Amino acid sequence: MITHTDRLDHKAVADLANQLRVDSIRCTNRAGSGHPTSAMSAADLFAVLVGRHLNFDWSNPKAATNDVVILSKGHASSLFYSALKATGSITDEELMSYRSHGSRLQGHPTPDLPWVTVATGSLGQGFPIAVGVALANREFDHARVRVWALCGDGELAEGSMWEAADRAGALGLENITPIFDINRLGQTSPTAHGWEVERYARCFAAFGWEPLVINGHNIAEIDDAFETATRRDRPTAILARTLKGKGIPNIENELGWHGKALTDDMTKRAIAQLSPASEIRIAFSLEFGRPAEPAPLPATVTTVLPRYNIGESIPIRRAMGETLAALGVDPRVVVIDGDVCSSTFTSLFRDKHPERFLQMHIAEQQMVATAAGFATRGYRPVLATFAAFFTRAYDFIRMSALSELSILIVGSHPGVEIGRDGASQMGLEDLAMMRAIRGSTVLYPSDAISMSVLMAEAIEASGIVYVRSTRGAYPVLPSANPEFRIGGSRLFLSSADDRVTLVGAGVTVHECLRASDILAEAAIPARVVDMYSVKPIDTETLLSSLSATSGRLVVAEDHHPQGGLGAAVFETLAPFGAIRECRHLAVRKRPDSGAREQQLDNAEISARHIAAAAREIAEE
Amino acid sequence: MITHTDRLDHKAVADLANQLRVDSIRCTNRAGSGHPTSAMSAADLFAVLVGRHLNFDWSNPKAATNDVVILSKGHASSLFYSALKATGSITDEELMSYRSHGSRLQGHPTPDLPWVTVATGSLGQGFPIAVGVALANREFDHARVRVWALCGDGELAEGSMWEAADRAGALGLENITPIFDINRLGQTSPTAHGWEVERYARCFAAFGWEPLVINGHNIAEIDDAFETATRRDRPTAILARTLKGKGIPNIENELGWHGKALTDDMTKRAIAQLSPASEIRIAFSLEFGRPAEPAPLPATVTTVLPRYNIGESIPIRRAMGETLAALGVDPRVVVIDGDVCSSTFTSLFRDKHPERFLQMHIAEQQMVATAAGFATRGYRPVLATFAAFFTRAYDFIRMSALSELSILIVGSHPGVEIGRDGASQMGLEDLAMMRAIRGSTVLYPSDAISMSVLMAEAIEASGIVYVRSTRGAYPVLPSANPEFRIGGSRLFLSSADDRVTLVGAGVTVHECLRASDILAEAAIPARVVDMYSVKPIDTETLLSSLSATSGRLVVAEDHHPQGGLGAAVFETLAPFGAIRECRHLAVRKRPDSGAREQQLDNAEISARHIAAAAREIAEE
Repeated sequence: MITHTDRLDHKAVADLANQLRVDSIRCTNRAGSGHPTSAMSAADLFAVLVGRHLNFDWSNPKAATNDVVILSKGHASSLFYSALKATGSITDEELMSYRSHGSRLQGHPTPDLPWVTVATGSLGQGFPIAVGVALANREFDHARVRVWALCGDGELAEGSMWEAADRAGALGLENITPIFDINRLGQTSPTAHGWEVERYARCFAAFGWEPLVINGHNIAEIDDAFETATRRDRPTAILARTLKGKGIPNIENELGWHGKALTDDMTKRAIAQLSPASEIRIAFSLEFGRPAEPAPLPATVTTVLPRYNIGESIPIRRAMGETLAALGVDPRVVVIDGDVCSSTFTSLFRDKHPERFLQMHIAEQQMVATAAGFATRGYRPVLATFAAFFTRAYDFIRMSALSELSILIVGSHPGVEIGRDGASQMGLEDLAMMRAIRGSTVLYPSDAISMSVLMAEAIEASGIVYVRSTRGAYPVLPSANPEFRIGGSRLFLSSADDRVTLVGAGVTVHECLRASDILAEAAIPARVVDMYSVKPIDTETLLSSLSATSGRLVVAEDHHPQGGLGAAVFETLAPFGAIRECRHLAVRKRPDSGAREQQLDNAEISARHIAAAAREIAEE
Repeated sequence: MITHTDRLDHKAVADLANQLRVDSIRCTNRAGSGHPTSAMSAADLFAVLVGRHLNFDWSNPKAATNDVVILSKGHASSLFYSALKATGSITDEELMSYRSHGSRLQGHPTPDLPWVTVATGSLGQGFPIAVGVALANREFDHARVRVWALCGDGELAEGSMWEAADRAGALGLENITPIFDINRLGQTSPTAHGWEVERYARCFAAFGWEPLVINGHNIAEIDDAFETATRRDRPTAILARTLKGKGIPNIENELGWHGKALTDDMTKRAIAQLSPASEIRIAFSLEFGRPAEPAPLPATVTTVLPRYNIGESIPIRRAMGETLAALGVDPRVVVIDGDVCSSTFTSLFRDKHPERFLQMHIAEQQMVATAAGFATRGYRPVLATFAAFFTRAYDFIRMSALSELSILIVGSHPGVEIGRDGASQMGLEDLAMMRAIRGSTVLYPSDAISMSVLMAEAIEASGIVYVRSTRGAYPVLPSANPEFRIGGSRLFLSSADDRVTLVGAGVTVHECLRASDILAEAAIPARVVDMYSVKPIDTETLLSSLSATSGRLVVAEDHHPQGGLGAAVFETLAPFGAIRECRHLAVRKRPDSGAREQQLDNAEISARHIAAAAREIAEE
C-alpha cells in the first residue's frame, strides 16, 4: 500500500482511477447488480477530484469547511464507495457489503453514510441541489467551500438541469463545479445528443456559464480544467467526453451494458488488466488556506408572534406571512419564493428580512432544490407557492425526505376555496401527495391563531413539514383547548348529548361550525373537531369523539376524496372499528370559476351539505 | 361592424388588437378579477395570428385541418376569449360572463370551450404539450397543421420549457411556432432576465432553434416573423419584446399590476382611448392550400392477447410488455419511453412497432406532455417508466386530467419489491398520487393474466389510467372469477367459515395467499381478495367479504401507509361502518438495498406478518 499524505501526482491519480475501477467492478460483481460501466466512465474525473482538488477531511465528514461532493449520477455509487475505501473511510469488507440488506452502501447513495450530503438516484436532482448548496454557502456560510457535482449526460434531458443552470448562471455562482461525464450512452439507447459536447457547451454558455470541454480520460486535461474552474470567478461547467465502461475489454463504449454487473470471468480479467501495482491510500485533507471557522451558531432568539383577537376576520395566508416575518428573527430562517409572494404573503417576510428572501422565480423544482441545499447547511428553509404548483416538484420533495432534510413547505391557495381563478390553480391533490411522503408532517390551520402557533411549531420540526394555507379571511375561533401542537386537534362544542362528530380542517372547520348551528336548530347536537394536524393525527380525540357520538361521523374536506383528510381519519379509525356510520364530503365535481361560496356549495362541502349529511346518519 | 372575409391588412390588425384589449379590459373589469395587463402585452401578437396567419375554421373547432393554438400563458385567457368574440364564436354576453359560476369562460382556459385544445394555467406546460401535438401531427396525422403556442417570459424559468425546447430542437420540429411575449414583468418582481431577449435567443439557438427577435407591438415585424416561421423547415421561436399593460395609461410597463382588474374609471378611460372606430368581425378560414383530408379512422383490429398458463411464473412487467406489443395492432397506440424500456419491457412494443415507439429520453415531464399532445389528436398514448419517476411529472398529469385527456401510464418498479436498487428507485407514493387525480383509474395486477386483460381494458378507458407494474416473476394465479375488469376484484379461497378478509394488490396478493396457508394450519380460514382495481374499487365484494368475516380485515400493501390501497379500502368501507377490527400493513420503515424477500419482510408486509396480524384479530 502506498499512503499519500499530500496531493497525488498525475501518475498516482491514474493508478487511483484504475483502483476505483477495480473496486467498482469487484463490489458490483459481488452484489450481482449495480452500474459498473457508469463508474468506469467517471473514474478518471473522480480520481483527479479526490486525489488533487477536493478539500475534504475524510475523518470529519460533517466539518463545515469541507467541500461538498454530490453524486448527481447516483447510480455510479460504486465509484463513490470505492473512493471512500481509498480514503480509509470504509473498509474493503464494508465495500463488499454493497447492495446487501443492512449495509449503508445502498444501490444509490443515501445520507446513512456521513460523507453523503443528499440522497441521489432520481436523475436531474443532484446538480439543482448542488446549486442550492452553493448559494447557501456563498450567501450565508462563514467558511467558503466548493460544491462539486458529478453528473451524467443522460440527465441533461431533464429540464430541471437547465432550470438549475439558468438560476446558477443568472446568480453568477462561482463556487460550484458541475462535472458532466458525457459517455454518450443511456440505459437503452444512445443519449439524445451523444458526443455533441460542443452543443452542451453552447447551452451552458447561453445560460451564463463558461464551459470547459475536455477529454475525460486525460488526467492532465482534467486537472487543468478543475484548476481553472476553482480559480475563475464565474460559473464554470466541465464537459468531459468519456467512454462508458472505459477500461473493460469488449464492453468499453458498447451499448447494452448499462446497469449490469460483470461475470466472474470478466471481473477476473478486468482486475488483472486494471489493478495498480500497489493499493493507493489517501491520507490528507487539502486546505487551500481556508480558515476552519465554525459555522455560525443560531442566535438564541425571542420570537414575538403576532396577536389575533377572537372573532377578528383575517386572511389565513396573511397570518402565515405575518408569523413568518416574526419568525425571521431567527437568522437560520430563509424564505424562498416562486414569484407569488404577494399572493402567499411571504412578501411580509421579504419586507422585514430582504437579505434572507430568495426569489427563485417560477421554478418550483429549483425552489425545492434550493431549500434542500440550504437545509444541508443547517438553515431553516421555508418555501411558499400555490399548493397546486408543488405537484411540479413532487419528486424533489420525495428525495428531500429520503435525504432526511428539514424543509417547511407552505402550500397556498388550496381547494375550491380560492374561487374565481379556476381548477388549474386549486390544490386538490396536495394533502394526498404530502401525506404520502415518508416522515412528513401535514398541518392545515383554520384561523389566524392556529396558523401562527403552528407555523412556529413547524419551523422547528424535523423532516418535510407541509402547511396548507388558505386564501380567504375567516374569523379567529374561540378554543376550548387553545394550545395548538403538531399531532393535536381542537374540539368545539362538545357535550354528552352529541349525536354526531363533524370533522373538518381549514375552511371546512368554519362550515362544520355553521352546520352545527343548523343541526342545533333541528335538535341534533353535534361536536366539531378541527383536525388541523392532518399528519400526525390526534387519534385520541378522534376515538373519544366517535365513542361519544356512537360512531357517527361526517368528514368534510376541500380536496379530492382520495388520500386527504378523510383518508387520514379513516386510516386512523379503521384498526379500531370505531366508525358505525359516516359521510365523507369532498370535492367530487369539477370546479369552475365561481365565487368562494358558490364553489364550496357546488362542491357540496358547505355547511348545508354537512348538516344534511349529519342528519342522514344522526336521525336514523 | 366591419366583417372581414379575408386576411386583415395591417391597419385592421392593429384595430383588432385594440379591440381585443378593450374586450379584455371590459370582461376582467366586469369579473372584478383576471389578468388584463398580461393580455395587453400579447394583444398585437395574437391579433396578427388570428387576423392573418391562423388556419382555423371557427365554426368547426374540432376539424383535423385546423391549426392548433395553445395559450401557454393561460392567465391571459381574456385575450383568447376576446378573440373568440371577434371570430363570432361566442357572444359579447357570454364574454361578459367571464369568471362567473357556470360560465365556460373560466379564469384559465379549459376544454369546456371547444376551441381550447388543452387546459392551461400551470405555467411551463403549454409549450411542452404543443411540442407533443406538433410531433403527433408531423409523424402520424394526414392533414399537416401548424401548432402555435403563446407563451409568457416568466414561464421560461421553468425547466420544463427547456426540456421541451431540447426535444423539439433535436427532433427538428418545424410545424410548431412558439411565440414568447417578453414583457419583462412577473407577478411580484421583474423576471430573472427582463428584456435580455438576446439571451433567450442564444438559449433557443443552443437547443437547435432559429430564434426571431422582434418588437411585439410592431404589426409588420410580427407579420414578417410569422411568415418566416411558417416557411422555414426548422424549429423557429418568436421572441417578442413587449410592454406589460401596453395601451393602458399609467399602467403600461409598470410593476404591481399583475392579475388586477381595472377600476371602472380606468376602464372607461382605456375604452375611450383604445376602441377602434368599428367593431371588427373575422369571418374567414384560411386554407393555405391544405387538403381537408379527414383524420384516419382507427382500423378495426383484432387483438390477440398473449396466453399465460396457471402456475407459470412470469415477470409481471414482461406480461405488460408482451400485451402492449399485442395491443399495438391498433394503429392509434403510441408508446413513449424515458430510456428504461428494457426495464419496463416496452422494448417488446418497440421491437414490433418501432414506428410508433417514441424515445423521450430521461424527461418525464416531456413524456407526459408528449402523451397529452398525442391524446389531443386521437391517439392512444402509453407511457412507461419507473413509478417513482412519475412523481416528477405530477403537475403535468394533474393538468392532463383537467384537459380530459386519455393517457395510459404504466408505473414500473413500485414498492420495496424491486429489491437492491434502494429507496430512490421505489415508487412508494404513486398510488396516493394517482388516486388523487380527478377521474383517474388505478389498476395494480398481481399476475401475468390479470396484467394482460387489464392492459387491454386500460387502453380503451377514458381519462388518466394508471397501471402499477411489478418487477418480479410471480405465478399465474387460479381464479374463481377469472374475468378482470376495471372496478372488479378477484376473490380467492372463500368459504362460509372465513374468519378474516385479507386484502392485497400486486405483490401482496401472493403474500396474502401464503398467509392464508399459514392461517389454515392454525385453523383460521381466511379469504383473500385481489384488489387489482384500486380505483374504482369493488365495493360490493369488499362489503360482502367484510360481512362474511364479521368485519375483520387485514390490508397489506407495498406502499407508504398513506393514501394507497388501505386508504382506498377504508374510504370505501367507512360510510358503511363495515370494519369491526382491522390491521393495515404498509411500508412504514425505510427500505435499504436488500433482496426482494428481505425487503418485504423488513417492511412487515410479507406472509408471516399478514398471518400474524390476521391472528391478532381473528383469535379474539
